[in-house]
Amino acid sequence: MMQISHQQLKSTFENVLLKTNFSAVKAALCSKIFADNSLDGVYSHGLNRFPVFIEHIKSGLIIPEAEPELLSENGSLCHYDGHFAPGMYNATIAMQKAIDMAKINGIACISIKNTNHWMRGGTYGWQAANAGCIGICFTNTIANMPPWGGKEPRLGNNPLVIAVPKAGGHLVLDMAMSQYSYGKLQEHELNHEQLPFAGGYDTIGNLTTDPQKIKQTQRALPIGLWKGSGLSFMLDVLLTALSGGKSTSEITTSGKESGVSQTFIAIYQPDLHQSLIEQIIDFTKSSATDGNDGKIRYPGEKTLITRNKNLMEGIPVDPKIWEQVCRL
Amino acid sequence: MMQISHQQLKSTFENVLLKTNFSAVKAALCSKIFADNSLDGVYSHGLNRFPVFIEHIKSGLIIPEAEPELLSENGSLCHYDGHFAPGMYNATIAMQKAIDMAKINGIACISIKNTNHWMRGGTYGWQAANAGCIGICFTNTIANMPPWGGKEPRLGNNPLVIAVPKAGGHLVLDMAMSQYSYGKLQEHELNHEQLPFAGGYDTIGNLTTDPQKIKQTQRALPIGLWKGSGLSFMLDVLLTALSGGKSTSEITTSGKESGVSQTFIAIYQPDLHQSLIEQIIDFTKSSATDGNDGKIRYPGEKTLITRNKNLMEGIPVDPKIWEQVCRL
Repeated sequence: MMQISHQQLKSTFENVLLKTNFSAVKAALCSKIFADNSLDGVYSHGLNRFPVFIEHIKSGLIIPEAEPELLSENGSLCHYDGHFAPGMYNATIAMQKAIDMAKINGIACISIKNTNHWMRGGTYGWQAANAGCIGICFTNTIANMPPWGGKEPRLGNNPLVIAVPKAGGHLVLDMAMSQYSYGKLQEHELNHEQLPFAGGYDTIGNLTTDPQKIKQTQRALPIGLWKGSGLSFMLDVLLTALSGGKSTSEITTSGKESGVSQTFIAIYQPDLHQSLIEQIIDFTKSSATDGNDGKIRYPGEKTLITRNKNLMEGIPVDPKIWEQVCRL
Repeated sequence: MMQISHQQLKSTFENVLLKTNFSAVKAALCSKIFADNSLDGVYSHGLNRFPVFIEHIKSGLIIPEAEPELLSENGSLCHYDGHFAPGMYNATIAMQKAIDMAKINGIACISIKNTNHWMRGGTYGWQAANAGCIGICFTNTIANMPPWGGKEPRLGNNPLVIAVPKAGGHLVLDMAMSQYSYGKLQEHELNHEQLPFAGGYDTIGNLTTDPQKIKQTQRALPIGLWKGSGLSFMLDVLLTALSGGKSTSEITTSGKESGVSQTFIAIYQPDLHQSLIEQIIDFTKSSATDGNDGKIRYPGEKTLITRNKNLMEGIPVDPKIWEQVCRL
């Protein structure tokens, strides 16, 4: 591992994007999001994902020149067609629209179809919270998880983000509907480690902590078993019903994870009762710890710790991937 | 077990409520919700819960004469004080307000503080869907689950409901944040059965399928381990931040599950792309089954099957509880 500064990471990404038909505005925005993701410790959707992002541009899944189009605006509901523009660009515009409308009406809901992978969902949660809004957003994906009662992938892991502004560090939950992401499975496989908890099924149909076996069966475990299966299904229904865009079904049939559907909800209320939020945090942390890693944390707390560490010490990067990106 | 008709169940409840200071309107509404819950197979929040409901009225936790008060209405956000009126009455009024406002603005968000247990959360999902709206609602509870990394109850199981209208049977997800409810643990304990999957921790700190051990440690398992812990925490934060009401912390400190906080979101969009929803259902069900019970179902599907069965054959009731209610 080597360390790179946020600034160096961002400007390297930006240079590549400017050579890849990105406008100055889009290159600045997308390179910042990639660099921020690595800064916050979400390496899988920062530097490590950047080469794949460039590949998807070259193969036409992502269209750098495209702009999202506002299709309709009724009260506090709004619809966009993303026209396959970079997912982070579309998502940022959609969440900004939700924030702007919430500041007028209290709450707003923006749906977008034909968009692309937003990388880290938490990005748009932080965006809403930084603007003083509650942010809720979710996306569908290609099928990578069986429904409860089934054994073939038919559901996406459809990440869900909930963010609430808090002085001293926002509360940001960013979770997919599978117990472990495929990135996490791969990480454990490379390190020849078992998962700490069952993450899916083996070929015999038993729950297993072996990442290799789960990748083999493609039977990743939904969080909460039948419950996460139901929640993932409902998120896909909400996304599709609101946007009229591609469902996990249609994305999977196309064979490529492109043209996904997303929803962004922002709520603006001047007084979010910060002292009561602090009370919730204090109460939650007042539990005796289970003696494993000895910490009870609120969603987003670890992100801030990693962010500050990486700001001080530099962002750890895999030298091979870093060189690869420098050559792009 | 004996069978009772929905009508008989409802009118029995109604008579008791009329004798317990309920107005005719409130008695009709609350008795219908209790009877519907049993009809739909949610026996724990139908007949079986009714005696406890009456106890809570007698002990003053629930105030039959109270009316919810509209505190503020800004754009599509709205706040109520429930004044400890019956939870199902308050929740129905709040969801109706959300529906009415969503039909004007597209989306609305109603928060209520100082309300009471809403019995089955799904009730208000069905209410929204019957009105042609997407419905999302959640409630906090007394602490009954440890946060991830802790071993003492600090989080509620904070049920979350998501409903989407569909011709031929709405999609209604109604799930708590614990893998099993305490009702489910008790059911298995009484039948001397192990849980089908780990539901919490034993005294040594290992995951267990033994309901008795989980009740002993009070360490119920959140769905998806750290993920459900985070989601439960965030729902409580949203509820408290929006309503300014009691958090799980404050409810737990008071020692009684009363005066809880709830949020109701309705979305109205004339075209919810029903054919795309059908496509999602068909795709999900096209997976090979895992050979356990051989069925892949959408959220709400089993409810309809039970409802129709109970309408035809009568609602199964425990004769002892039925007699107890008849004597009230």
